Amino acid sequence: VKVSELGEFGLIERLRDELGAQEKATTILGPRSHLLIGIGDDAALWQSPGVAHLATTDTMVADVHFPSEGVGWSDLGWKALAANVSDIAAMGGSPEYALVTLALPDEFLVEDVVALYKGMAAAGREYGVVIAGGDLVRASQVIITVALTGRATESPRGEPLALRRDAAQAGDLVAVSGSLGNAAGGLRLLLESLPCTPEAADYLRRAQVRPRPHVDLGQGLLRMGIRCAIDISDGLAQDLRHVCRASKLGAVIRTAQLPVSEQLARTFPEDATAMAVGGGEDYELLFTGPANLVDRVRGRFTIPITVIGTMVDNEERSVRFLDEAGHEVTFAEAGWDHFRGETPR
Amino acid sequence: VKVSELGEFGLIERLRDELGAQEKATTILGPRSHLLIGIGDDAALWQSPGVAHLATTDTMVADVHFPSEGVGWSDLGWKALAANVSDIAAMGGSPEYALVTLALPDEFLVEDVVALYKGMAAAGREYGVVIAGGDLVRASQVIITVALTGRATESPRGEPLALRRDAAQAGDLVAVSGSLGNAAGGLRLLLESLPCTPEAADYLRRAQVRPRPHVDLGQGLLRMGIRCAIDISDGLAQDLRHVCRASKLGAVIRTAQLPVSEQLARTFPEDATAMAVGGGEDYELLFTGPANLVDRVRGRFTIPITVIGTMVDNEERSVRFLDEAGHEVTFAEAGWDHFRGETPR
Repeated sequence: VKVSELGEFGLIERLRDELGAQEKATTILGPRSHLLIGIGDDAALWQSPGVAHLATTDTMVADVHFPSEGVGWSDLGWKALAANVSDIAAMGGSPEYALVTLALPDEFLVEDVVALYKGMAAAGREYGVVIAGGDLVRASQVIITVALTGRATESPRGEPLALRRDAAQAGDLVAVSGSLGNAAGGLRLLLESLPCTPEAADYLRRAQVRPRPHVDLGQGLLRMGIRCAIDISDGLAQDLRHVCRASKLGAVIRTAQLPVSEQLARTFPEDATAMAVGGGEDYELLFTGPANLVDRVRGRFTIPITVIGTMVDNEERSVRFLDEAGHEVTFAEAGWDHFRGETPR
Repeated sequence: VKVSELGEFGLIERLRDELGAQEKATTILGPRSHLLIGIGDDAALWQSPGVAHLATTDTMVADVHFPSEGVGWSDLGWKALAANVSDIAAMGGSPEYALVTLALPDEFLVEDVVALYKGMAAAGREYGVVIAGGDLVRASQVIITVALTGRATESPRGEPLALRRDAAQAGDLVAVSGSLGNAAGGLRLLLESLPCTPEAADYLRRAQVRPRPHVDLGQGLLRMGIRCAIDISDGLAQDLRHVCRASKLGAVIRTAQLPVSEQLARTFPEDATAMAVGGGEDYELLFTGPANLVDRVRGRFTIPITVIGTMVDNEERSVRFLDEAGHEVTFAEAGWDHFRGETPR
């Protein structure tokens, strides 16, 4: 059935039924935060404790962020919500309520919209996000926009705390969670057929289609005293550059220390480092802090944390990459700029 | 300059400069609500009093909601924000922080984006909305998505209150603010050249391009005891149908009572009633309540309030229109359905 046959309001009803009470997500939100009015009124209304609030939005466009053919819509739904959850994680907050806007061509299939919502609801159950409303519009391209609110973490004295991009200090160590480049590896495997063990293929593809943002880690870092973090969505080089600009510093990264999974290293022995530097969509957290604090942080979380470099005073606010011998390594301009297009990764 | 020349991050810088501190909006928000982190981090962070929160989102697509040629981008920016403010008004809340997502083709001009933001910021100053973040993406069509948060009005005992679509009762009177069909008249004047006085043309065009949502009225209605309202964005017939469905009731409307401006009646003597019934984008408030309460409400606000009909028990949950003689009048299926397209108005 095409969305044009069901109509806007029929489709809203269908999706509302599909989402149901979202009880699992509500359980994670806790009894003090609850939805009073959800899908079907002029706005969503919820009660939430706490004095400070977070909101973020992230958009995925067909043929820009994902191919318009052969898409797993459920995976894409998961990813659209997860990308926003990751932004709340990178502030050290707790995600709460999402508004979902879908721009769809007339001939788009209702089954595919439902699959998209199922994937989104699955991510919602996992991360305690309730889908509370949204908008459906006709367009020539599929565009998925999620706006996500969250609750900020508070200090014991009730002051709002956040992980910021502009809070790095010269001399801070730069650390990242997990391993980098897996999602870029997964994308390559989805686009080309390459020699690869089934286990590695599964691991890398999963990193690409079902990314897992680190909400608990963000909150934990903030509580331990870390104040500067960003999530790696556009690639290490690009996202670290955002931290450098905001904090008015430079950074020096040791490429030999970059955490690269065995699966990525084996499948792409030549390119693994470049993928770790330039590949986006890993949704790992990058953070900075004084050496003694970063030392204390390491080992306190189940996810591995790796020190990859140092923040430095530097007029150009540049990110430099050094190899084991201390020689500078350059990578093809890596990262994502929407209006300039993507560079190979 | 094209957006592709400036690049995503250059454009973000430019827009951030353009928006500046948004001090006027901040003044309206009041000292208890303030932005802690705005554009340029992973999420926006703000402090806000109150226990209950609102969020809405509304999208405008080129060639669906507005023509892609000859657009006044500043007007469109105003309207994109105003449409969302109107949804918060229709819940009886106070708008607070907006996230703006722009999907733009590569060749879109930076000057036009800046004009769009200027219009949005002007609406923000007027209604106390701070633009706190957003997303910029490349797409084949211009699409403007605004997500807007708000603070819910509270009862004297601190409980959240809201104007809901599902709170109408059989026997309630149906009332609307202002006059209906002006925005539809303005649209016709923008598309065709018609005989019309300059004053009427200006009045109707302004209703179309610079709509003024009724935030104070929404809050006032809620405080006086009204519990059911919706804003008229898709047209009276369509929006009243939403109230009927949600409240499991029907409605009977007297077409002779529909408030129609002198300007609309003179310019479109034949079509004014049909425009008042089917024309969207007026952003007036429709509400229902018992006769004695609606009587008290009338005259308490500077904006005129007109009783246009009654909510009735009715299995089909239909909206019926009766003329002065009590005969049923039908209009061409009026209102807006995205995937079925627009009907003439």
